[in-house]
Amino acid sequence: MVKIGVLGAGTWGMALARMLSNMGYDVMVWSALPKEVEEYSRTRRHPNLPGMIIPDSIVFTKDIEEVCTGKDILLFAVPSVFVRSTARTAAPYIPDGQVIVDVAKGIEPDTLFTLTQVIGDELGKDGKHPSVRLVALSGPTHAEEVSLDLPTTIVASCTDMKTAEYVQKVFMNDVMRVYTNDDVLGIELCGALKNIIALASGIALGLGYGDNTKAALITRGMHEITMLGLKMGCKAETFYGLAGIGDLIVTATSEHSRNNRCGHLIGQGMTPDQAVKKVGMVVEGINAIPAALELEKKYGVEMPLVDAVDAVINHGADPKETVRNLMTRPPKSEQDYIRS
Amino acid sequence: MVKIGVLGAGTWGMALARMLSNMGYDVMVWSALPKEVEEYSRTRRHPNLPGMIIPDSIVFTKDIEEVCTGKDILLFAVPSVFVRSTARTAAPYIPDGQVIVDVAKGIEPDTLFTLTQVIGDELGKDGKHPSVRLVALSGPTHAEEVSLDLPTTIVASCTDMKTAEYVQKVFMNDVMRVYTNDDVLGIELCGALKNIIALASGIALGLGYGDNTKAALITRGMHEITMLGLKMGCKAETFYGLAGIGDLIVTATSEHSRNNRCGHLIGQGMTPDQAVKKVGMVVEGINAIPAALELEKKYGVEMPLVDAVDAVINHGADPKETVRNLMTRPPKSEQDYIRS
Repeated sequence: MVKIGVLGAGTWGMALARMLSNMGYDVMVWSALPKEVEEYSRTRRHPNLPGMIIPDSIVFTKDIEEVCTGKDILLFAVPSVFVRSTARTAAPYIPDGQVIVDVAKGIEPDTLFTLTQVIGDELGKDGKHPSVRLVALSGPTHAEEVSLDLPTTIVASCTDMKTAEYVQKVFMNDVMRVYTNDDVLGIELCGALKNIIALASGIALGLGYGDNTKAALITRGMHEITMLGLKMGCKAETFYGLAGIGDLIVTATSEHSRNNRCGHLIGQGMTPDQAVKKVGMVVEGINAIPAALELEKKYGVEMPLVDAVDAVINHGADPKETVRNLMTRPPKSEQDYIRS
Repeated sequence: MVKIGVLGAGTWGMALARMLSNMGYDVMVWSALPKEVEEYSRTRRHPNLPGMIIPDSIVFTKDIEEVCTGKDILLFAVPSVFVRSTARTAAPYIPDGQVIVDVAKGIEPDTLFTLTQVIGDELGKDGKHPSVRLVALSGPTHAEEVSLDLPTTIVASCTDMKTAEYVQKVFMNDVMRVYTNDDVLGIELCGALKNIIALASGIALGLGYGDNTKAALITRGMHEITMLGLKMGCKAETFYGLAGIGDLIVTATSEHSRNNRCGHLIGQGMTPDQAVKKVGMVVEGINAIPAALELEKKYGVEMPLVDAVDAVINHGADPKETVRNLMTRPPKSEQDYIRS
């Protein structure tokens, strides 16, 4: 039987753990928070997934060594800011050749590493993991919906296609369709930067703009992320796949998205600080701006929407005036990346 | 002053006529329905655009010769089924070299022509229009929102980029940003086929599925339209531009879309006939299926979503079972068009 260790007991980790357990696999969940382990193993409920019952077959542990030992797949599902520290703590217990599937999204500010790169970096430090296999799993996937078995698609991405296909085979079932992709960097770039566009989409909504504006922001936003990705050696198709435009559509059109909600409040007139306080949780789109600006500069790409969001969030620009400036930029072709 | 003749007084024609008139152009609107001409020129209101006042500067005419004479641009805004007959009637009055901008979307069933091809075909019959310049104008553009000056983007597409840039210059203002694109066939293919995917998205909603499923349908739906487009010689980038994924997002996520609404009713258990009757208007997605199937066959492309919608609409397939079949197709890469 396939044995899976899940690191992190947030909504996404738990929704996947339930799905995998229901597929008949041996699933163990670890959390850095002993309180979570105690509560979830007792109540079999997750506070943020009210419709879900945690199957009795899922075993919880507080011991990171236990979760890392003897597993076919380790699923990294910790918040992005804890990926490096978790990888560091887990490293001594992770065998070489281990298949590690990361579902956290983000870019580390100082290194500009994506999160599988962060894991690879930590595991590389002891010289004992030359053959670890890192997979990014990403797509348009609200955890709430996966926890209710609503049909969902996702991409398993690995430079080694055999490993991607192995993960595809393990995760695929009749409510979860898994595609493969070998462009890991592209997949992770989308996941990290989409929230900035979702923030822009929220701002437009708050300004009273409609579906036309939203669709324009999503399309042109993904266009500029694609332009950056091409310069970084990624494949354009990735950005128009499930982890790219697919995930952006879910994020930018959902009322549940924190980024969208935060933007909405800003568009309605709150300062960014007030909006973040009101949302009460991490707004990943705001946190992603510095890395996006650095990448934009490093690779010499024009990213007018990222710049506009930065102007509104960090430099007090008026949202309405900022939209006007975007609309009246010099006219251009939408085919600029064919020529670049 | 730029002189513009608008053929068709539906919501989209009138929203654009108002915008162009407000830009200071000389705008004349023709309708085949004398009643419309009389009513709109008197009331200065359009029944389906309640928030809009028709500027006094817009002149209405019942005379197709008058609307075609002495104009810098003719805007074809008649329903798609009337494009050929309108072009035929107008042909004697259209000068050679005329810039014609078409905003209707569709594929003619028998010829498989797109609508600028239909216009070109009709104007070509008398041998007097060797140099007519045909432009497709398309994007994520609810007429209601354009009539209220909400920020909107659109693509002016012509094989002759100078003409595309001319139309861009004429139509662009601070609430309408126009991009150019030389892949007219790609632009028109998107416009014609997106409604089938919107229908699928509506069906999924009616089945009680969520945002994950919707994003999957939009992403994979545009993927299969792209595969077809590539076989037909179009550029992949077009499908991921404003007239492609942008327009599909607006259509498939809007409650105002008839295709979406019709699909919703079918997903909830109505037969397609009942649903069409209830919607009470043309459901373009249903009408587009035969042409899509013919193109699929002719170019040897796999279009599983189009096939699935056809099965549900025309062959009594159960929607839930059909989704299950889609989810459990053999596993694959999302990068198949890199190799094709």
